[in-house]
Amino acid sequence: MAALRIEAQTVAAHTCAAYLWIMGKYVTLKQLAKQLNLSHTTVSRALRNHPRISEVTKQKVQQLADELGYVQNPNAQMMNQGKSRFIGIIIPDITIFFYAKIIETLQIILADAGYTLLLFNTQENEAEEQKAVQACIERRVEGVLAAISVETKQHSHFESLLKHEIPLVFFDRVLNFLPVPKIIADDYRASYQTTQHLLDKGCRCIAHVTASIHLNNSNNRLYGYMDAIKDHGSTIDEQLIHYYEMNPQSIETFLNKTLKKYPQLDGVTVFNDYVANNVVNVLLKLGKKIPEEVSVFGFSDEPIASYMHPQLSTVQQIAPKMATLATQKLLSILLQEDTLTSEKIVIHQDLILRETTRA
Amino acid sequence: MAALRIEAQTVAAHTCAAYLWIMGKYVTLKQLAKQLNLSHTTVSRALRNHPRISEVTKQKVQQLADELGYVQNPNAQMMNQGKSRFIGIIIPDITIFFYAKIIETLQIILADAGYTLLLFNTQENEAEEQKAVQACIERRVEGVLAAISVETKQHSHFESLLKHEIPLVFFDRVLNFLPVPKIIADDYRASYQTTQHLLDKGCRCIAHVTASIHLNNSNNRLYGYMDAIKDHGSTIDEQLIHYYEMNPQSIETFLNKTLKKYPQLDGVTVFNDYVANNVVNVLLKLGKKIPEEVSVFGFSDEPIASYMHPQLSTVQQIAPKMATLATQKLLSILLQEDTLTSEKIVIHQDLILRETTRA
Repeated sequence: MAALRIEAQTVAAHTCAAYLWIMGKYVTLKQLAKQLNLSHTTVSRALRNHPRISEVTKQKVQQLADELGYVQNPNAQMMNQGKSRFIGIIIPDITIFFYAKIIETLQIILADAGYTLLLFNTQENEAEEQKAVQACIERRVEGVLAAISVETKQHSHFESLLKHEIPLVFFDRVLNFLPVPKIIADDYRASYQTTQHLLDKGCRCIAHVTASIHLNNSNNRLYGYMDAIKDHGSTIDEQLIHYYEMNPQSIETFLNKTLKKYPQLDGVTVFNDYVANNVVNVLLKLGKKIPEEVSVFGFSDEPIASYMHPQLSTVQQIAPKMATLATQKLLSILLQEDTLTSEKIVIHQDLILRETTRA
Repeated sequence: MAALRIEAQTVAAHTCAAYLWIMGKYVTLKQLAKQLNLSHTTVSRALRNHPRISEVTKQKVQQLADELGYVQNPNAQMMNQGKSRFIGIIIPDITIFFYAKIIETLQIILADAGYTLLLFNTQENEAEEQKAVQACIERRVEGVLAAISVETKQHSHFESLLKHEIPLVFFDRVLNFLPVPKIIADDYRASYQTTQHLLDKGCRCIAHVTASIHLNNSNNRLYGYMDAIKDHGSTIDEQLIHYYEMNPQSIETFLNKTLKKYPQLDGVTVFNDYVANNVVNVLLKLGKKIPEEVSVFGFSDEPIASYMHPQLSTVQQIAPKMATLATQKLLSILLQEDTLTSEKIVIHQDLILRETTRA
């Protein structure tokens, strides 16, 4: 790395620290000991402020350590103590604002607690998720916070974390059968309330767009919709339910078909704001007035909800709260204040009424 | 961790791997050696397929290693080889789609190359950035990819990476004086072209909203705007330039004041799409027709640009390309195919014409 050395030397000379290069990339305890003509043990103890070492020696050691830019190697420490101070984060799609917000929040808490974050973005792919779990094990992370991919059908990769006694806390998208804490939103209730709100405002033909049947959160939103319809005394019409398979075109096909069969369609509740935005755009294109003729509800108040025109009625964004609860749960397990048991922590979500639903 | 053990045992028993608990959290080479009554060296060599070890022994060792779930400790390996296989990523704000997209792209490339990503989100804060750099050094990352915070005015924390011979590649937001590769967009040219496009379409009173004067990219956008105005033979009016300080309210104040003094205002170019969205909303609220009376240009085609109504004319999103170039540059430096020198790689950006500018 000659070129790196030359470039770096320019900087080093500039900051009067050129002697660093004599010592190599990282100054070691051994090098400090040699230069001071002290034993490795003495230098190590001096740096840890050990009572057996004289103040004079401590000062001498610390001074050289500072001069040479000695940095403790936490990787070495963790090898001795079995503590890597790493937490693995496994999320399905970092470009979804909700997950970016989750990471923003949990990193603040983890950094405060002295942890570094290993990030794994699975791109909604189960094979990538398996690799991420394997990397977490190999990297000896102390714990994992995870939301599963839309494809995930197996447990075994997450079970292997437990075999290695690595605590796992699920959030948002969870595997129900695994005996670990799960921090989830009360999606059933919030979805029930969006549908009930539309019924209260006079809507009588309400469609629902849901995601993969493998995801707990969109499933709960579907059940909330269905129960609100049933509790209102109406019957569920399977043709009013659209299973969205990550294909934006399918929204136009579904709404075209539905409006032909049910021209009286007056409400659509959607499992997320991005797809709700698509629903609004297609309805406007088909000449429908929103909210006068059709009301639309999204879910989780992503930034687009306010950028849209009309602004989207939706369900509260709870990423900061969810990230905080999940991270605190994991940290309290690591501190042995809490145990790794199967439990669900459910977060309530308020409705946010904007312009796509009638006042 | 008694409770963890009980919960985990349920899973373990279920998957017929309960013996793992006898061995503890991670099976070590030492434990394999003891159980096989072989030396540590023999077991280590057998696992590395060393020619001095017989096939029979290799099979015996591998079989027990598989049975007990032995996982090599890369942290231990890296300590011996000085290779952590970690790359540090320092970004200002993960909730900005551009940076989320950067991370999505670079993680795919880094994972393929066998690296794990340590993520640091500085929240646009210089002190957090300094901590992130320090953590990268302590964690012995092999390289750093960074975009600076809006606050960053100092070099010294990034210089300390170079003192430790840790290659650094800047992208998007860079410190010009540091002798490292910088992957940037041709913001000057793209901004020049947006302003020129408005002039070509007949706009004669064009305002510009810029960000911090400390950021290279928004500064270049400002200069592009100013030079296009000058090259058109007009003079720069300082009162038509707004320095946006992360305060959304300031947009309404600026536009109100500007429209009073310059009722003929017919164009606004904005340093990013989020603020451009705010500009569009305020102009619509003030009764202006877009694009008939006022044209608006954003920058970097974030998802909101298409969600808005009218859809925003803007400059192409280049996060995937930028992330790819930055990561490839860092990897080629790590492979010593390339050297760490001061160079700029500049990415061209196309204009995207939508509904906020006249056809």
